[in-house]
Amino acid sequence: MTGEFIAVDWGTTNRRAYLIDAAGAVVETVRDDRGILAVGAGGFAAEAEALRARYGRRPMLMAGMVGSNRGWHEVPYVGCPATIDDLARAAVWVEPGTVAIVPGVSTFADDRPDVMRGEEVQLLGAVAAAMTPDDALLCQPGTHCKWAWIKGGRIENFTTAMTGELFALLKAHSLLAAQLDGPVAANAEFLAGVEEARRGDLLASLFGVRAAAVLGQAAAGRGAAFVSGLLIGADVAARSGVAGGDIYLLADPGLGALYGAAINACGGAPHLIDSHAAFVAGIVEIWRKLP
Amino acid sequence: MTGEFIAVDWGTTNRRAYLIDAAGAVVETVRDDRGILAVGAGGFAAEAEALRARYGRRPMLMAGMVGSNRGWHEVPYVGCPATIDDLARAAVWVEPGTVAIVPGVSTFADDRPDVMRGEEVQLLGAVAAAMTPDDALLCQPGTHCKWAWIKGGRIENFTTAMTGELFALLKAHSLLAAQLDGPVAANAEFLAGVEEARRGDLLASLFGVRAAAVLGQAAAGRGAAFVSGLLIGADVAARSGVAGGDIYLLADPGLGALYGAAINACGGAPHLIDSHAAFVAGIVEIWRKLP
Repeated sequence: MTGEFIAVDWGTTNRRAYLIDAAGAVVETVRDDRGILAVGAGGFAAEAEALRARYGRRPMLMAGMVGSNRGWHEVPYVGCPATIDDLARAAVWVEPGTVAIVPGVSTFADDRPDVMRGEEVQLLGAVAAAMTPDDALLCQPGTHCKWAWIKGGRIENFTTAMTGELFALLKAHSLLAAQLDGPVAANAEFLAGVEEARRGDLLASLFGVRAAAVLGQAAAGRGAAFVSGLLIGADVAARSGVAGGDIYLLADPGLGALYGAAINACGGAPHLIDSHAAFVAGIVEIWRKLP
Repeated sequence: MTGEFIAVDWGTTNRRAYLIDAAGAVVETVRDDRGILAVGAGGFAAEAEALRARYGRRPMLMAGMVGSNRGWHEVPYVGCPATIDDLARAAVWVEPGTVAIVPGVSTFADDRPDVMRGEEVQLLGAVAAAMTPDDALLCQPGTHCKWAWIKGGRIENFTTAMTGELFALLKAHSLLAAQLDGPVAANAEFLAGVEEARRGDLLASLFGVRAAAVLGQAAAGRGAAFVSGLLIGADVAARSGVAGGDIYLLADPGLGALYGAAINACGGAPHLIDSHAAFVAGIVEIWRKLP
């Protein structure tokens, strides 16, 4: 396809729309909280119509949870290894010529099934725009942190870790909650947590936070940074290719700084790249290749 | 001390009282939900008085969270290595000659602080009653699973893992909740979880449960057993001395069966011992040695 179009990164809780010109440049972008949970079944056509009305009735290409079984139209996953051409070929037109959805990617490697929806556009966009080499390890921190091994420009395999969700659970509901209400930064406490993670004994390291508080050994307000370091350190230490390798981080500056510090501590070299630019590069490439 | 007495294992949410005769045998026992959280500050003297009134005004020896800063009277921890004589020496009379509380035990070994209150009576009671050898690895599964390395009859060191609490958090509040409402038993799914734990990548293994469900690969109702195996497997696999060793389990039959299966899978030999008998043996020994 050619010409102006509307790109939408439509996730579970948030949505970002971009008006993109014929040269692939962003004319305008807006983020809101109309994620798929807020829209709900039956509401997607009207939401899409409103976006199209706003942006001159251009055709629209969407990625993310909008293509899941809780979204507008379920689009089957593309299996690994996956190229950007595969994503374009397997995209589904919800309204022919007008509205399409990009598939997610699945893997069954190493007897561990995994899925992504939305992240694949950033990943392959970063490669397509030469923000990373054609062989690279990419990391997208978040509630569910994605790690993708790129080989020859394809997503060869990937792993998702529940890092962010577990931190939120511990902070909201665990016995450690009282220790976790302080700030998180890539400071000495965070790095102590990363170091503790290298024992490979997360369940006991977590209780140690409680014990330190009981024994008066925990500095007030510093538990959150330690536990963040513990979880992110466990995530990073479990990944093959970190030690001695270049890691390309698709992250906002906050999470990017935390993962960068943990990667450094584990002997890797982090490189922060612009996740919005990567998404735009990916969605433009898919748009051009849409059958 | 000699003669009949009342022993109380007074925990956070539950309490068990025993009337014990001069020979150290249990005359009567009762369990209720009057844990320290239910009693609250200021209520302990009346609760203790009611117990003493019920059991012929015998003197009373208590262990557990009743000796914590949220209990009746804070009793300082005894440091490792700790013997049963140490516990007796450091017990505190709340009402001289009438009501005493056994201390908990703390450790600072390997730069990881840890604490216990109540479990030490079972652990050293099991050793005193020759339910275990004088050199042994003991395991008390639960919300916070305790592992104790006994050397020459002393608690040399111990580690607490948040195994049970994390399972409860995931079941109640996580994205995996829908997969975790089935039964848990030491079945093939449980053992598959134990095997998965040996990757040492808990954060990713947990997300795999979600991905398997999304991809239609998860048998309905079997996620709970798998995740239980994953967490208990991670707990067991992280302990030194399991492979090729005898592990003495102080557990109810349900958790005993789960930990036993995981220990077997990790190459250890589990031995289930009676945790109530161990408590009684320990508290009687401390009573006799009370200064």
